[in-house]
Amino acid sequence: MIVEKVKTEGLAHLSYLVADGDQAIVIDPRRDTRIYERLATEHGCQIIAIFETHRNEDFVTGAPVLAKRTGAQVYHGPHPDQPIEYAKTVEQGFQLQLGRLRIDVMETPGHTYDSVSLVLYDTEADNSQAVGVFTGDALFIGDVGRTDFYPDEAEKVAGLLHDSIASILQLGDHTILYPAHGAGSVCGGGLSDREFSTLGHERLTNPVLKLIGDRDAFIAHKTGEHHYMPPYFSLMEQRNSDGKAPVLQQELPALSYEQFKEKGNKVWVDVRSVEAFSGHYIAGSLALPVSMIAAYAGWLIKPEHEIVLLADSETQAHTAYAHFYRIGFDNVSGYWQINTNRWAVKSGQVSQIEHIGVNTLAGRLRENPDLQILDVRKYDEWKDTGVISGAYTAYLGHLAEKLGGLNSSQPVVVVCGSGQRATVAASLLKVRGFDQVCVLWGGMNAWQEDFSTEPYTE
Amino acid sequence: MIVEKVKTEGLAHLSYLVADGDQAIVIDPRRDTRIYERLATEHGCQIIAIFETHRNEDFVTGAPVLAKRTGAQVYHGPHPDQPIEYAKTVEQGFQLQLGRLRIDVMETPGHTYDSVSLVLYDTEADNSQAVGVFTGDALFIGDVGRTDFYPDEAEKVAGLLHDSIASILQLGDHTILYPAHGAGSVCGGGLSDREFSTLGHERLTNPVLKLIGDRDAFIAHKTGEHHYMPPYFSLMEQRNSDGKAPVLQQELPALSYEQFKEKGNKVWVDVRSVEAFSGHYIAGSLALPVSMIAAYAGWLIKPEHEIVLLADSETQAHTAYAHFYRIGFDNVSGYWQINTNRWAVKSGQVSQIEHIGVNTLAGRLRENPDLQILDVRKYDEWKDTGVISGAYTAYLGHLAEKLGGLNSSQPVVVVCGSGQRATVAASLLKVRGFDQVCVLWGGMNAWQEDFSTEPYTE
Amino acid sequence: MIVEKVKTEGLAHLSYLVADGDQAIVIDPRRDTRIYERLATEHGCQIIAIFETHRNEDFVTGAPVLAKRTGAQVYHGPHPDQPIEYAKTVEQGFQLQLGRLRIDVMETPGHTYDSVSLVLYDTEADNSQAVGVFTGDALFIGDVGRTDFYPDEAEKVAGLLHDSIASILQLGDHTILYPAHGAGSVCGGGLSDREFSTLGHERLTNPVLKLIGDRDAFIAHKTGEHHYMPPYFSLMEQRNSDGKAPVLQQELPALSYEQFKEKGNKVWVDVRSVEAFSGHYIAGSLALPVSMIAAYAGWLIKPEHEIVLLADSETQAHTAYAHFYRIGFDNVSGYWQINTNRWAVKSGQVSQIEHIGVNTLAGRLRENPDLQILDVRKYDEWKDTGVISGAYTAYLGHLAEKLGGLNSSQPVVVVCGSGQRATVAASLLKVRGFDQVCVLWGGMNAWQEDFSTEPYTE
Amino acid sequence: MIVEKVKTEGLAHLSYLVADGDQAIVIDPRRDTRIYERLATEHGCQIIAIFETHRNEDFVTGAPVLAKRTGAQVYHGPHPDQPIEYAKTVEQGFQLQLGRLRIDVMETPGHTYDSVSLVLYDTEADNSQAVGVFTGDALFIGDVGRTDFYPDEAEKVAGLLHDSIASILQLGDHTILYPAHGAGSVCGGGLSDREFSTLGHERLTNPVLKLIGDRDAFIAHKTGEHHYMPPYFSLMEQRNSDGKAPVLQQELPALSYEQFKEKGNKVWVDVRSVEAFSGHYIAGSLALPVSMIAAYAGWLIKPEHEIVLLADSETQAHTAYAHFYRIGFDNVSGYWQINTNRWAVKSGQVSQIEHIGVNTLAGRLRENPDLQILDVRKYDEWKDTGVISGAYTAYLGHLAEKLGGLNSSQPVVVVCGSGQRATVAASLLKVRGFDQVCVLWGGMNAWQEDFSTEPYTE
Repeated sequence: MIVEKVKTEGLAHLSYLVADGDQAIVIDPRRDTRIYERLATEHGCQIIAIFETHRNEDFVTGAPVLAKRTGAQVYHGPHPDQPIEYAKTVEQGFQLQLGRLRIDVMETPGHTYDSVSLVLYDTEADNSQAVGVFTGDALFIGDVGRTDFYPDEAEKVAGLLHDSIASILQLGDHTILYPAHGAGSVCGGGLSDREFSTLGHERLTNPVLKLIGDRDAFIAHKTGEHHYMPPYFSLMEQRNSDGKAPVLQQELPALSYEQFKEKGNKVWVDVRSVEAFSGHYIAGSLALPVSMIAAYAGWLIKPEHEIVLLADSETQAHTAYAHFYRIGFDNVSGYWQINTNRWAVKSGQVSQIEHIGVNTLAGRLRENPDLQILDVRKYDEWKDTGVISGAYTAYLGHLAEKLGGLNSSQPVVVVCGSGQRATVAASLLKVRGFDQVCVLWGGMNAWQEDFSTEPYTE
Repeated sequence: MIVEKVKTEGLAHLSYLVADGDQAIVIDPRRDTRIYERLATEHGCQIIAIFETHRNEDFVTGAPVLAKRTGAQVYHGPHPDQPIEYAKTVEQGFQLQLGRLRIDVMETPGHTYDSVSLVLYDTEADNSQAVGVFTGDALFIGDVGRTDFYPDEAEKVAGLLHDSIASILQLGDHTILYPAHGAGSVCGGGLSDREFSTLGHERLTNPVLKLIGDRDAFIAHKTGEHHYMPPYFSLMEQRNSDGKAPVLQQELPALSYEQFKEKGNKVWVDVRSVEAFSGHYIAGSLALPVSMIAAYAGWLIKPEHEIVLLADSETQAHTAYAHFYRIGFDNVSGYWQINTNRWAVKSGQVSQIEHIGVNTLAGRLRENPDLQILDVRKYDEWKDTGVISGAYTAYLGHLAEKLGGLNSSQPVVVVCGSGQRATVAASLLKVRGFDQVCVLWGGMNAWQEDFSTEPYTE
Repeated sequence: MIVEKVKTEGLAHLSYLVADGDQAIVIDPRRDTRIYERLATEHGCQIIAIFETHRNEDFVTGAPVLAKRTGAQVYHGPHPDQPIEYAKTVEQGFQLQLGRLRIDVMETPGHTYDSVSLVLYDTEADNSQAVGVFTGDALFIGDVGRTDFYPDEAEKVAGLLHDSIASILQLGDHTILYPAHGAGSVCGGGLSDREFSTLGHERLTNPVLKLIGDRDAFIAHKTGEHHYMPPYFSLMEQRNSDGKAPVLQQELPALSYEQFKEKGNKVWVDVRSVEAFSGHYIAGSLALPVSMIAAYAGWLIKPEHEIVLLADSETQAHTAYAHFYRIGFDNVSGYWQINTNRWAVKSGQVSQIEHIGVNTLAGRLRENPDLQILDVRKYDEWKDTGVISGAYTAYLGHLAEKLGGLNSSQPVVVVCGSGQRATVAASLLKVRGFDQVCVLWGGMNAWQEDFSTEPYTE
Repeated sequence: MIVEKVKTEGLAHLSYLVADGDQAIVIDPRRDTRIYERLATEHGCQIIAIFETHRNEDFVTGAPVLAKRTGAQVYHGPHPDQPIEYAKTVEQGFQLQLGRLRIDVMETPGHTYDSVSLVLYDTEADNSQAVGVFTGDALFIGDVGRTDFYPDEAEKVAGLLHDSIASILQLGDHTILYPAHGAGSVCGGGLSDREFSTLGHERLTNPVLKLIGDRDAFIAHKTGEHHYMPPYFSLMEQRNSDGKAPVLQQELPALSYEQFKEKGNKVWVDVRSVEAFSGHYIAGSLALPVSMIAAYAGWLIKPEHEIVLLADSETQAHTAYAHFYRIGFDNVSGYWQINTNRWAVKSGQVSQIEHIGVNTLAGRLRENPDLQILDVRKYDEWKDTGVISGAYTAYLGHLAEKLGGLNSSQPVVVVCGSGQRATVAASLLKVRGFDQVCVLWGGMNAWQEDFSTEPYTE
């Protein structure tokens, strides 16, 4: 009896292969499904069914592809916003036997209308006491799912989620919790970075669950949250309904220097670490390290644009490529194994982004109190820690629309938590014609060690 | 916050790395400790402490070596049978903070006097509600630890275990259970092959836990169990007290054909699959596939003998070597990448072990009702399924002493569950001069599909 | 300046990536071309051209696929038997500059009419002294190419080859020799298993080159050779002219036991080692270990049949799959990770092939001088070593047509050099209803150590 | 018959495993010898002998260790400067049979007095025509060995080398050349980056070999060369005579941030790419990317100093560690997986090295003609390409002694070929208190594209 968790970095997405004997099911597969087939082979079993806990909006589902390759049936909950063309609908009470294990479907709407949870029983041990529950985006460790997808029905769906979670908790404290996301997901804010819990431990410690039983307070809490919704979500909704996302080419072509430099309408995306980017980069490229693609590509790049990657290695390029196509960006056409020295020889040009420490920033602020500080973090972070006095706040996802608030001919110091997002923002400013841009390395984590902030006001 | 499980096949041993931020602890490390260091590095943390849940008897502890390499402190429970020279004693109530996690020591004697359980708290979530508990050999999934190590105090220690488990259950149903063994271990009989559970699920479904609260019934159950104790356990007891197991050479030498064939006093152990062994083997060698080394080497080979391996590949040889040294067999001196063709050319000799199916066996029994059937399974298996009518029963670990009950000049068909252990037994019979030996492939699993058995009586 | 040799086992085929700076060419690519792209990436270069030394008959060319993926131009020599639709024709004197290297085309017909050799110059060192020459199937280390493909023009093409080799030798003793095959190829008989040589060393030591200068003697030698031509060669000729071999699916599906056992018209091919096969196999399957697929699949299986593999592991199955599709067998539809124990449990059936040593065979022959001995080696081997007295000779590729010469109700001992081909033959006899079949393990290599043979007469 | 070349990057060292049947020899093994054992195992053979072509001065020999592990005999030429305590002396005419291969010793002094070449014969093909020759540091592709190790006998040893090479050439044009170094080695200047040649091709194209036959011209050429001799060479001489280099610990410890930052007397060496270094580094560390360790560690670091590495990954750290111990630097005590963000948070400090392009440099020179330019290339490079007008030249290996020629309170632009060595030099200047240091990225390769140089005068 096996539960294998497949964690997809960037998306902070958790999918699962559950198996007994020589049969397996997969729950919420991602688009590149080979990993599930490999796991099934390792455990000597065949994938017979695929469950989706809901119509995902943050990544392209792998269910249709995996179903075609393995002959497995896809199951999906009732009441999707659009018909799920590749799946069979299953309702409350549906059961699937898997060797000595059994999977029961429990309808748990709220995050979406079609959300279900999947309850796992070890029938050899006991038919009625759940071993675990796969809660999709209904219940996380430390938080619950967001309920802002139906703005006109905000209170209704928050109430549904309340009731769904109350039902889930009825399974008993002893039930292991298997959610669809961990910390870092765009699908929830307060997720713990602990990845193991039980319904009982959540009941006792998850702050949102304290509100279960007080439906109005729960609704008030949920409708008062602040979430960001990347533009590509609507694309995902379409793709995950019709199941027609094309199969991708298997290998991303490596481009020669000559092939690379013919820019045309291509977007150059540098997926190296921001540390490497800040040392040398190719003028005109956007910094977007692999780990940030899932969260920010949807904001910073239009899906219809052709993308060319700059990467340290073939491995890095292929990983980045997967991060792109998992969220439906199918226009990555190649990568250049970056050689900044060659660029320097051929173009005579070398680009660096200055990174400074907090002491340097403090010194500059003393000399120039009007120095522009750009803070690209999120609303919840500004609220939590405050901001550097005088900082201009613009969420990185909204930055392109908010550039008007900055003077491009004057110096800008970009700030985030650590310096990661700030480097991405700095690369965007450079593309947009700002030329005195630097990054606070260490970010607010460093600033708060030694210097004061002021409260954020909208 | 991370709990990484390290599963050691063969021993069915589970050890753990627990980490938060940049600190980690290891619980019950095995002898080859590089895996813990690698996990710590992957997660960007340093091992600061090592806990042993008890003085292990089934494998050589890696705690002293890992402590020396990393500078970590080893902690061990009170009242060991012999002093644990490399560890600091910790008692009920000892606490260790690990980033936002906390580890509390709980004394849980019974399996041994020095057994402790380690309770895990996420102090960011809650200071008093356990997230998980590492129970060592006190509580398993589907069973509890064996209590036959102190024959003179059998009832006393069984009673202690009862009380320990009752205390563990007080942590609450929501607590995740992290035991030190899974199915297949020599440290318990009825372990589930499910490797995830909670105290609540065990309370509700583990058959032995139904007896918690009825101390006498629990003691009666435990003292009525039938366990086997391999002779090497006493060697482990010594090694795991003084911590002086030598560091092993890193690479097992590959032997040439010429080096290999000078047998002398060496024991040739063929660690290939029993399927491969049955196809071709070198006369005089003992079959012991990698997966069976942990369970049977201690019975079939004396630790002081020099061992030479026959293996398909370097990888297989090194894996087998690790299986040997984990249980303290340090005398493996090399391996020969087996080439039976070369052996055939040089010696003119080819050895095979006949494997037959159940229909063939049934036919032979009809022709010769006195055909010797040797059943090498365990007591609990004989009891559960019965035996083939007329079978001579001898546990594989005891076979060498029980050969007197068989006629070496007449055919013997060796039987176990599947044919694995039977092939090992057949290779032993061959070494001891039996020359008409064959194996029932499919074993009792196959036999029971079509033919009847009779009850086992001692 | 790089010459990377890619050796394809089974076919004993040598292809090459030659590179300088950031440009590379590939010579005679095999069908699965990813390896050339990976090598190019490793060396930081792009594949700009692909050369074929001739229209290959023993494997499916990868040139059209590789050209499409990389944008490289394919070059092929003049006078092919059928037009090469995907290539540009190049003639004597064509030159391609590759960084500081230069490739010159030299027409070297004989093996085929379209054969060319490619001469490599390091122009930085010298423009007129060759560094190496890629001779395709014209000149090998220790032998020259076969000239039996045009039976009606046997003397003409042998004469052409004589002249071609004489021209090649004009490049000078110092020229490194890079042929298209090594020992074990079906494209030549006397190839050395040394894989490095020069034109000078061949001139001095290659026995066939002693005949250069005596055209008639060379022709007589070549027309007197004995070669086998597998039926799939004609399929290759078509494929390698039109370049339309389909792109294959990337991953071979793993079949469950249930999927596997529905046999229908499928051919079960067991690709494990013959040692493993002889220990346990599934009745009805053909033994064909990975290393023998290239040489014998074309004889033993019809390309239009659906093939299902039995393999030890996913890796082995995928390797075998590649060996099949490289020679144009595109009908491999899946593999079963073989579990003979499960088969035994479900079917009650266990199959083994008896392997015996030479002493046992000698004993049986003494008891039964009429015992059928089947020798499945090649003509040249029978000639070289003689045969066991009374042996029935049938080349493994011709065995199916020659079974009439054996009595299927009497015992047969199958013999080859080592026992490899004999096990394949034994599996075929079993499928054809012979039931007393055994294999001489060690084969003639072992027999000759201790026993006598008699000369082979046709 | 196998010749496997093992290329050791950094040292540009070529060692060889030569094998036939189940026996192998190794020529000039490096200190970490596991690779030879693995190759031998892959080819199914045993290492029976180890040859050294001379007492190496640029790396620690692996011969004594490999001999101990495998039981092989070490052979070394006559007349070493100090006795080779672990080897048997072999002289002109010594022969070793290796299956069908044969190795003949040929004395070829000049580079050192104890230099020998090893001539390879395929006795199956021919007993008297060499297939290849392993020339150690006597003859390279495109150059010959340096002869500056005996300054008092410069002409004598140059003459000896002349005669040795003349003898080697007697083996015949067809003989494949296997030298001990490729391009990039400190053991020769004009080595080709082609790694395949023959005696004939060298005779025809190697410029130094044009002088063979004119002994005086050859001597004049050799004694007029300019070589650098790193201080660690003398350490190597001792180690490679007594064979007592200690066996190293197998795994380099990973240090926590706290362990790392206690600097004490340790030398922090940052082995990341110079691109990464220039983006972020830890003040006080020396840049020395892995590929430059072999060439420059011996100049920039004293062997007795404790070294701590800063690396991107465990793999990079271990590779760097090997580069250090191969040249006898055994004092690397650990590595920190560098996290510059953490450093920034904890210290408030961020360090970058400015990299500029040629256009920027030209602009600065126009503004400030007295701008200090430091050129850290080699004598031969200055001679070949000239230098930027006004540049201060100091070979990187000599930089520490030549800092007096620069003004540390004024800006310095450091220049090399590409920017690699310049970044190393810049890190050294920073440690020595220069604070306005920048690097010309693209280096002289870029400068020469667009700007002029002036001839170098000593």
